[in-house]
Amino acid sequence: MTYCLGMRLDAGMVFVSDSRTNAGVDSVATFRKSFVFDGAEDRIVVILTAGNLAITQSVISLLEERLDSDDPARSLYAAGSMYDIARLTGNAVREVFQEDGEHLRQHGSEFAASLIVGGQIKGRRMRLFNVYAAGNFIEATEDTPYFQIGETKYGKPIIERVLTPATPLVQATKCALVSFDSTIQSNLSVAPPLDLVIVPADTQRASVRIRIADDDPYWNDLRRRWGQGLRALFDDLPDPDWAL
Amino acid sequence: MTYCLGMRLDAGMVFVSDSRTNAGVDSVATFRKSFVFDGAEDRIVVILTAGNLAITQSVISLLEERLDSDDPARSLYAAGSMYDIARLTGNAVREVFQEDGEHLRQHGSEFAASLIVGGQIKGRRMRLFNVYAAGNFIEATEDTPYFQIGETKYGKPIIERVLTPATPLVQATKCALVSFDSTIQSNLSVAPPLDLVIVPADTQRASVRIRIADDDPYWNDLRRRWGQGLRALFDDLPDPDWAL
Repeated sequence: MTYCLGMRLDAGMVFVSDSRTNAGVDSVATFRKSFVFDGAEDRIVVILTAGNLAITQSVISLLEERLDSDDPARSLYAAGSMYDIARLTGNAVREVFQEDGEHLRQHGSEFAASLIVGGQIKGRRMRLFNVYAAGNFIEATEDTPYFQIGETKYGKPIIERVLTPATPLVQATKCALVSFDSTIQSNLSVAPPLDLVIVPADTQRASVRIRIADDDPYWNDLRRRWGQGLRALFDDLPDPDWAL
Repeated sequence: MTYCLGMRLDAGMVFVSDSRTNAGVDSVATFRKSFVFDGAEDRIVVILTAGNLAITQSVISLLEERLDSDDPARSLYAAGSMYDIARLTGNAVREVFQEDGEHLRQHGSEFAASLIVGGQIKGRRMRLFNVYAAGNFIEATEDTPYFQIGETKYGKPIIERVLTPATPLVQATKCALVSFDSTIQSNLSVAPPLDLVIVPADTQRASVRIRIADDDPYWNDLRRRWGQGLRALFDDLPDPDWAL
């Protein structure tokens, strides 16, 4: 499994992905699922991937090998808008489906792929999309300013409680890390290192781009405080008078 | 969907179920999913149900209409052990499968059913089982002293953090209610009223058996305190020094 989370807030965007892949429990490995495209001065595009690794790697490879093209329908750096970038990414997913879909079907495998595509082109607004296996996509809005892909449920409650478009970037980043902590606690198939990218609004550059390993002091301190705090909060809850 | 939770602790057992059923979003109703069998002096059996309502209601009907039988392979009150009760329940699921399985298949419906079966016979130990659609079952242990069925993921993190076999009944009950709160926050298809049953060890009787409605003062106070406490705990987390 996988867990990836992208947020689009007034102050900027936050992207976090885990790096565990598994094909059965005896084939567990670490692969990057977060890709930053910042080779053109006027824009930044961040893509997070979940699903069949062969599919998502192919999609990223197609996008990478076309970066130098000046065809706006093929290159992330030539596309005229974030909407076009989402469509271009969806089209790359469809290309891979053309190539692999029927073969996967013959082997009883689903064509599973889901991508979070976010970014900003200079002078335009930040946009965040969720691109599906069929190549179609939806966009994050004020009401739902984030997308999760992969193992989404364990980490959703804290986001629903904390996140609004007005949440500052540092708070949103902590919220994302707590969400990953809840997921990692509950599901073996999601694990560090975590790849974290923060893109402040109207900068078109990542202000933070780090990999958080299992032994990262801040990450461990956060997990410890959160776990102990939850415990203390729980212990403080009043007893029901009917449960004596 | 549905969420049901059963716990087997040193001090006794706790069972909680929601009561929302839905067949599509335009067919939402309230049905009890928690059944207490305490008509024999020497035992109590509690069954929680998830899955296709027609299947689980049939299973409960079969069990109910055989309560007066003195055949230990048919009556919950005549069975010699909790293990036999789990098997007898599994056999009832298999009977319903014989009757309905092929018809459901013809209509493209899965034979979906999952039950939590717990209780105690006087002089013997408390036991808790999860009975599957195939009629087979597993038992809760010291390592995993609880079972969840239905919409299990949102509410799992708090249980994993708090619950051990040594947890007192009142704490376990609060843990269960917080777990339901997280689930209800995140999933529209799980909703109050909640049916709650507490069975202290070696009593063979429910000490608490209540229905918690949406407007229950304790439930609302618990939810408010938990939500505000999480918020405060979150706000207290230190900022990472790399996120400036």
